[in-house]
Amino acid sequence: MIDSKLAFRQHFPALTNKAYFNYGGQGPLPQISLDAIIQSYQLVQQRGPFSAEAYAWVTAEAMATREAIAAELNVLAEEIALTEDVTVGCNIALWGIDWQPGDHLLLSDCEHLSIVAIARSLQRRFNIEVSTCPLMATLNEGDPVAVITENLRPNTRVVAVSHVLWNTGQVLPLGEIVKVCHHPPSWGGNQIVRVLSDAAQSVGVLPLNLKELGVDFYAFTGHKWWCGPEGLGGLYVSPEALPELHPTFVGWRSIIDHNTHKNVWRKGSERYEVATSAYPLYPGLQTAIALHHQWGTIEERYQEICRLSKYLWERLSEIPHINCLRTSPPESSLVSFELTNGKSHHQLVNVLAQQNCMVRTISSPNCVRAGVHYFTTELEIDQLVDAIASQTV
Amino acid sequence: MIDSKLAFRQHFPALTNKAYFNYGGQGPLPQISLDAIIQSYQLVQQRGPFSAEAYAWVTAEAMATREAIAAELNVLAEEIALTEDVTVGCNIALWGIDWQPGDHLLLSDCEHLSIVAIARSLQRRFNIEVSTCPLMATLNEGDPVAVITENLRPNTRVVAVSHVLWNTGQVLPLGEIVKVCHHPPSWGGNQIVRVLSDAAQSVGVLPLNLKELGVDFYAFTGHKWWCGPEGLGGLYVSPEALPELHPTFVGWRSIIDHNTHKNVWRKGSERYEVATSAYPLYPGLQTAIALHHQWGTIEERYQEICRLSKYLWERLSEIPHINCLRTSPPESSLVSFELTNGKSHHQLVNVLAQQNCMVRTISSPNCVRAGVHYFTTELEIDQLVDAIASQTV
Repeated sequence: MIDSKLAFRQHFPALTNKAYFNYGGQGPLPQISLDAIIQSYQLVQQRGPFSAEAYAWVTAEAMATREAIAAELNVLAEEIALTEDVTVGCNIALWGIDWQPGDHLLLSDCEHLSIVAIARSLQRRFNIEVSTCPLMATLNEGDPVAVITENLRPNTRVVAVSHVLWNTGQVLPLGEIVKVCHHPPSWGGNQIVRVLSDAAQSVGVLPLNLKELGVDFYAFTGHKWWCGPEGLGGLYVSPEALPELHPTFVGWRSIIDHNTHKNVWRKGSERYEVATSAYPLYPGLQTAIALHHQWGTIEERYQEICRLSKYLWERLSEIPHINCLRTSPPESSLVSFELTNGKSHHQLVNVLAQQNCMVRTISSPNCVRAGVHYFTTELEIDQLVDAIASQTV
Repeated sequence: MIDSKLAFRQHFPALTNKAYFNYGGQGPLPQISLDAIIQSYQLVQQRGPFSAEAYAWVTAEAMATREAIAAELNVLAEEIALTEDVTVGCNIALWGIDWQPGDHLLLSDCEHLSIVAIARSLQRRFNIEVSTCPLMATLNEGDPVAVITENLRPNTRVVAVSHVLWNTGQVLPLGEIVKVCHHPPSWGGNQIVRVLSDAAQSVGVLPLNLKELGVDFYAFTGHKWWCGPEGLGGLYVSPEALPELHPTFVGWRSIIDHNTHKNVWRKGSERYEVATSAYPLYPGLQTAIALHHQWGTIEERYQEICRLSKYLWERLSEIPHINCLRTSPPESSLVSFELTNGKSHHQLVNVLAQQNCMVRTISSPNCVRAGVHYFTTELEIDQLVDAIASQTV
């Protein structure tokens, strides 16, 4: 197993010179993905770059990418829009609501600062209410579904919560949250509260069936846990929510190209795509997704991630002056911890980087975050833990 | 001159197997740009991909790219936002206005279908008026400035016109248009009408000084006349217009990253950038821009483009059943023409593509469009003209 893992890791040039734990920031690009990207550039130049033949290639690769993504999420390809990143997906979902003054948007207190920035912009533009509910406190006890339920209002239109919280690694019970939002218990109205989930830390980690979860909008990126190239992600929009979600930024890729007196949108989520993108990245992401299947099913990979994050959590828990935020083993890849000796997290991260161990700080809660992937080795974890231990004595 | 041009063309793999006239769709990527992109991927993997060192590289390359672009437009780097494409730039400019119901947006009748799609979306969302003014008819006679002036209304907030019309290649007197819009003559109010210019067909072709032109918003792409990679463009926002232009799609790149109770935008146009992009493309565009300088100044390149487009226009004018839309030599790269024998433009373009001559159709006006770059050769033009002539006898 270890030998085959060491062989598998040869796919990732980034892993040859460091102990890497920043998958939640960006995953390492497999060499075969870079090769696919380079070949795509060459093919586009050979066929065009602008020609019917080159356009046919772009169209086919865009569809193949939506299909590869859709298969991972257990949805249809036409329900996927390709985006530049997870944040653009969140913008599409949040700006596409027909906000009326006084409508309410509910966030958790653990959302990424990008989501908070979007919410504030919407508040200003459409005069809506924005509030946050306290999920951070439910990391070890308490019920996030109950907290969200309590914070719904009669005027709530959208709840925006991550599937896996980026700061603490907590996995939220998204299916139960969606059930409450789609059938809010506290009032008699028949208004459905739509749920946007920031999936930056769940896609490529958790086995996913979005149809079972029932989520309306699921925004993700290819460049973190899928290890695809930076600059390519996507947004799932459910068929039920699609008619309500208006395209905001639009272009020739959003519309059916003929002369009409109003915009005629393309079928499905493709309408949220805008114009020219870095198309050669498409085969890069497809190749990365396919590579993970070579190693094992998503269930096998998730199991291995949990085994390794538990090992990291256990070993960190043994170090003096380190407090893991979770009191039980992680449910995902991320392990967040704090120094209890008052020393600077930034300084620790910088010292670790000098020793080629890559982790990051998080500002709220104030902590250090490490993440393991299924191809992380115990040796790498030992290297990180020993380096941390040497700084905290 | 011809010999040195043939040597220079070796930079572009796309030009080795075809006669290429679709620069207005996409320019050929120089091999040194692809090399720079590949090296960037390798460097990011070597340093990270997610690490302080990798982030420092991204930040420096983003700034270097804004600087390289700004030098071409005679503006400051901080006035440039990097975008995925020209259409995203137009979306940023048009969605960022604080539209009030009844406000008026004026387009020309020659704008790209992407701009028309944006205008229609704004009309629906903000209940604004959208109208078009007839500039197509001014290709050979008439005064576009007078037409725009006549179509301004007391409630006009923005005029959106291309700098070079994508369908006919007409160069609009942008500076004069801006003067009229900033000091509208027909009423006594002091409201400035902001001008957005779609610069897809002007950047990389015309010598540009945006400060002299006075334009408020100038949206462009790197992948057409600059021959950079697809998926990277930009938006210039003037310092005067900046305070009025609210960021719409936002993310961590838009804001100053600390805990505040409202969004604190980054300095200058950087606030319109969103989140993770295909950063390795940045050195690719810088390299392409630098390559053009190796050949000559923008004035020299523009002169060569005009010499070659005149030659193409003259030779096309000699062919029976071909009517060039312009009655005088082109002022830019684009030469649009129609078949007067009733045959299909699509069929002509397809037959030409089979002979490795790349041109495209335009639907309004119904025509075929060819564009020359400064490194186009007379031999290529002869090849195209002969291929067209053989189809129209």
